Amino acid sequence: MRKVAIVMGSDSDLKTMQAAADMLEKFQVPYRLRILSAHRTPDACRAFALSAREEGYGAIIAGAGKAAHLAGALAASTTLPVIGVPIKSSTLDGLDALLSTVQMPTGMPVATVAIDGAANAALLAVQMLAIEDGALAEKYAAYRQETTRKVLEKDEALGKEAAHNA
Amino acid sequence: MRKVAIVMGSDSDLKTMQAAADMLEKFQVPYRLRILSAHRTPDACRAFALSAREEGYGAIIAGAGKAAHLAGALAASTTLPVIGVPIKSSTLDGLDALLSTVQMPTGMPVATVAIDGAANAALLAVQMLAIEDGALAEKYAAYRQETTRKVLEKDEALGKEAAHNA
Amino acid sequence: MRKVAIVMGSDSDLKTMQAAADMLEKFQVPYRLRILSAHRTPDACRAFALSAREEGYGAIIAGAGKAAHLAGALAASTTLPVIGVPIKSSTLDGLDALLSTVQMPTGMPVATVAIDGAANAALLAVQMLAIEDGALAEKYAAYRQETTRKVLEKDEALGKEAAHNA
Amino acid sequence: MRKVAIVMGSDSDLKTMQAAADMLEKFQVPYRLRILSAHRTPDACRAFALSAREEGYGAIIAGAGKAAHLAGALAASTTLPVIGVPIKSSTLDGLDALLSTVQMPTGMPVATVAIDGAANAALLAVQMLAIEDGALAEKYAAYRQETTRKVLEKDEALGKEAAHNA
Amino acid sequence: MRKVAIVMGSDSDLKTMQAAADMLEKFQVPYRLRILSAHRTPDACRAFALSAREEGYGAIIAGAGKAAHLAGALAASTTLPVIGVPIKSSTLDGLDALLSTVQMPTGMPVATVAIDGAANAALLAVQMLAIEDGALAEKYAAYRQETTRKVLEKDEALGKEAAHNA
Amino acid sequence: MRKVAIVMGSDSDLKTMQAAADMLEKFQVPYRLRILSAHRTPDACRAFALSAREEGYGAIIAGAGKAAHLAGALAASTTLPVIGVPIKSSTLDGLDALLSTVQMPTGMPVATVAIDGAANAALLAVQMLAIEDGALAEKYAAYRQETTRKVLEKDEALGKEAAHNA
Amino acid sequence: MRKVAIVMGSDSDLKTMQAAADMLEKFQVPYRLRILSAHRTPDACRAFALSAREEGYGAIIAGAGKAAHLAGALAASTTLPVIGVPIKSSTLDGLDALLSTVQMPTGMPVATVAIDGAANAALLAVQMLAIEDGALAEKYAAYRQETTRKVLEKDEALGKEAAHNA
Amino acid sequence: MRKVAIVMGSDSDLKTMQAAADMLEKFQVPYRLRILSAHRTPDACRAFALSAREEGYGAIIAGAGKAAHLAGALAASTTLPVIGVPIKSSTLDGLDALLSTVQMPTGMPVATVAIDGAANAALLAVQMLAIEDGALAEKYAAYRQETTRKVLEKDEALGKEAAHNA
Repeated sequence: MRKVAIVMGSDSDLKTMQAAADMLEKFQVPYRLRILSAHRTPDACRAFALSAREEGYGAIIAGAGKAAHLAGALAASTTLPVIGVPIKSSTLDGLDALLSTVQMPTGMPVATVAIDGAANAALLAVQMLAIEDGALAEKYAAYRQETTRKVLEKDEALGKEAAHNA
Repeated sequence: MRKVAIVMGSDSDLKTMQAAADMLEKFQVPYRLRILSAHRTPDACRAFALSAREEGYGAIIAGAGKAAHLAGALAASTTLPVIGVPIKSSTLDGLDALLSTVQMPTGMPVATVAIDGAANAALLAVQMLAIEDGALAEKYAAYRQETTRKVLEKDEALGKEAAHNA
Repeated sequence: MRKVAIVMGSDSDLKTMQAAADMLEKFQVPYRLRILSAHRTPDACRAFALSAREEGYGAIIAGAGKAAHLAGALAASTTLPVIGVPIKSSTLDGLDALLSTVQMPTGMPVATVAIDGAANAALLAVQMLAIEDGALAEKYAAYRQETTRKVLEKDEALGKEAAHNA
Repeated sequence: MRKVAIVMGSDSDLKTMQAAADMLEKFQVPYRLRILSAHRTPDACRAFALSAREEGYGAIIAGAGKAAHLAGALAASTTLPVIGVPIKSSTLDGLDALLSTVQMPTGMPVATVAIDGAANAALLAVQMLAIEDGALAEKYAAYRQETTRKVLEKDEALGKEAAHNA
Repeated sequence: MRKVAIVMGSDSDLKTMQAAADMLEKFQVPYRLRILSAHRTPDACRAFALSAREEGYGAIIAGAGKAAHLAGALAASTTLPVIGVPIKSSTLDGLDALLSTVQMPTGMPVATVAIDGAANAALLAVQMLAIEDGALAEKYAAYRQETTRKVLEKDEALGKEAAHNA
Repeated sequence: MRKVAIVMGSDSDLKTMQAAADMLEKFQVPYRLRILSAHRTPDACRAFALSAREEGYGAIIAGAGKAAHLAGALAASTTLPVIGVPIKSSTLDGLDALLSTVQMPTGMPVATVAIDGAANAALLAVQMLAIEDGALAEKYAAYRQETTRKVLEKDEALGKEAAHNA
Repeated sequence: MRKVAIVMGSDSDLKTMQAAADMLEKFQVPYRLRILSAHRTPDACRAFALSAREEGYGAIIAGAGKAAHLAGALAASTTLPVIGVPIKSSTLDGLDALLSTVQMPTGMPVATVAIDGAANAALLAVQMLAIEDGALAEKYAAYRQETTRKVLEKDEALGKEAAHNA
Repeated sequence: MRKVAIVMGSDSDLKTMQAAADMLEKFQVPYRLRILSAHRTPDACRAFALSAREEGYGAIIAGAGKAAHLAGALAASTTLPVIGVPIKSSTLDGLDALLSTVQMPTGMPVATVAIDGAANAALLAVQMLAIEDGALAEKYAAYRQETTRKVLEKDEALGKEAAHNA
């Protein structure tokens, strides 16, 4: 099975991006965590992306904050889909990272998820890998059914426990 | 080859979403254009998404404006990756559609591209299909080299034509 | 008397939405709390809305955060008025939920209240039920007079206690 | 049948608010258009709202731009539900009117619709009046089915006419 | 000397608005604190504003949060200048109150100061009263010189204490 | 009678600021138009403000766009109240000028009006001058009654001409 | 004299960036216009920046729109100061380009100017080159005096021509 | 070597601006910290800027919050490049300071860095001084290599320590 790269620009982003790793574990999708910076290690960043497909990766998740260029820089150097996670920092509530990640020019898309949405980035990677992998698609469908079941259970529990007057 | 669905909530969105179809044509990726509304045709919308994988689709592109729920509604009913295109409408300059598309809750990602970024949505779909399709990946790489070549040519032309004083 | 549904997408929203229940209690308007997710339980969500009128509901309150689609999804499946409560989450200060709730396309309104405005959502439901219910309208008028009286009392107390130099 | 008031602060808002009147015509809901300003005619504004219920109104639609206080001012003087239409003006793309209309303090809700959403305001009024009026509810359901049918037809037409390559 | 009214819609705003009272104390400008709500006590609010000039007021300061209508409502009922203080609440960081206060329609200005800028509102009131009051103008000039002196002293102290390497 | 200065940073702002002059003409309040730039003519700007009170001015109106510093710069050099008009330019829809004008630090208020609100700036100046000038206050009251009368007339005309179905 | 590079990601940006060239012409500062894309020509972009100092450049101006990564990408590969010009595109009024350019992470500054501020970018480059170049500094001072003189002249002309009533 | 001024409007800004001093220490670039306010000490502020070049300064860093005019005021009085640091205050998350600093009118640029980006302001000053100072440029290049090395080390450490499943 193709693996997923989880790339971040700084080790301080690990507290946000760990959720992507945890989700991929749940689906037993192989992954690697990398620290690569578009600005501080441009060569390593480009080298990684240029060879990612041959290295067996199927998708790249990139998390960054502020003027978040990481996802775009990786996207420029691979034919693999790149999933961008805008990370909220101490100012502007994540809006800067969101716009810097999603507003890519024509020709160079980044599949952007919600601010701090690392878990969803992993799910999106799973969906991409599952396009041609029926077994993984079934795992994903089962995960969905599980989340459905949990909501239904909570609704039922609320029906019993919560104060209703009707 | 798996095909791509290009879904929009209204025929008035076709002028924006046509760019996705044009781009898929360029890559000879089969696609179909659909008008399906999360709010006006919820059953048809859900039925489409529930059966999309079996119908041979590999990815779904969904374009919508304002409180853009279409991509999320489709994502709720399929294991395929859903690509969201926020469409700018007459107020708020597209910010409403962007936030309504990208800020999905955990468990239900939408791969969001730039506002009015229909062409990039198609390229992202191509990248997803190309994960396991080496020939398509090579076409994509060639497309990229072509865009690279064009920029280099324009730079060279500018070097000859534009006014420089150095 | 017709009852009011208070729907939320997750039990974590209960801390915000409880204020709607408390307010309906005050007016002795029957209500039920439900957990239904537009994305995780789309069928249960649609089934609830489709039968809500026959089940004796007169209005539906829906609270959700981020790309808040719940109110719109319910509105798509009922002729009852749906009141949307945008819930502030950890990023963007509630602006995403506000725009995702209020910017509905033509044909499918959601009666949107302030971010985290669950108490006001209940008051709006009371006003809707009171259109044809003179007794409830009088209760509502009495509630208003009470809030007026409280402000006047506080103003008078401030006149006695607070530092003035005129 | 209770009638609906369509109030605006200036005759220049009529070009936006006419859509509310047109929609109410379609449902044969009686209405009146009024020009009343929270700031320029506060007494007339308050007098209108105070007597609106007795005058046979069931809901009030209020459209205003910029620091849009009209809906809130009317809401302060009636027990009827007030529907606010934020109107886009020459600066800030309607965001000012939206926030001024929707962010009402606890105790005084305004049912806010999308920026320039006058047609939806009328539909919301219809829904409110239809809570206890089965015939109107059926008209509304029919309207909805009509919009559903139109989308399905357009989808079918697109299926025949548009370029597909799958 | 004409006095200044410091009006707020709720006693919870006193913690912000007290700074206005403190500043007026410093200038020995007579003032009164009032709790008056545009929505909960519209009659008291209008009555106050209508008689404020005859009651000896020279300016009115009004502080309110969210969809802040208080300053505008007062402005509609007096020929005195009204100074608006947008108060930050739990969502949107004060932007809603700022736009609701400042974006007044033509014919009805509110002199708006910064979000939570109650002290500046008092200074602005002092400046207005000082237009024709030379003694107050001199007090104001002295206050300014004092703030100038304090900055110069801090700059000098920093020059001695802080680490410089030049 | 004290006069009013209407200051702008560039002659291109005259098309917006002329509305202030027109309004002052209506009230027969003496005024002068000046072009003074906080950045391009800092000395002239400061000299003007320092002497404005002695020159017989009672209030200063300052209009500027983008990073609008003009009102603040004038406020720093006079004890007169300074009224700021944020002017919309080609980007950001006036939000930059609004925040640059209104968010002044403690100690240095600017009385800010709506974006492009030059007419309201003049009305605010009139209100300031009218604090101690009963005749001007009466003129202002008459102006207000005139605007009230016009709205009432338009409402009546609409009652006769517009399509109503109630 | 060191020269200045004016880099843009697409020839469509030339209409905005030409103003930088025109301004440098005025100061007789040598410059070259280049089209280099962070995403489409990453190698050419990096190669240019890596050798820019040795090639005789003293500063680099980079203009880009949307998720504007160009200035940051150049900054990552040179010790020269990089000046970023956020370019307004068809959505979001330039806010995306501004945040993507200015919110750079610690260690990698971009000297950002106003949206579409290409002329100012050139002036900033002149100021940088003038730090050690007294003659250029004098030219710059003369330019400033010229702009001062023009404002004073316009103010004087306005004093003669415009309608004043004081 | 030319020195760098680090100017702030208030001693409360020192906690943010100290990072600039620390960074300049690291490069052994001489600097001085100053407290100068555009509004409270306009004369001292202008005097400082007018003589800064002759006093041996090569660049000026100015940090301010809210309606941040300090950088622009200094820029108006010197031919030296002025670097603006927008400082986040208690409301609006730094957006007001950013727009007030960066959106300067044509003719008067401010080199703006990220909100609270004092360290980057110092690095930008170093880059400016290094244009003609090869030794400083080499120090800067070494600093960059050091940050590159640290990222590579952290990536390697993460490769050993972090959980990977590929």
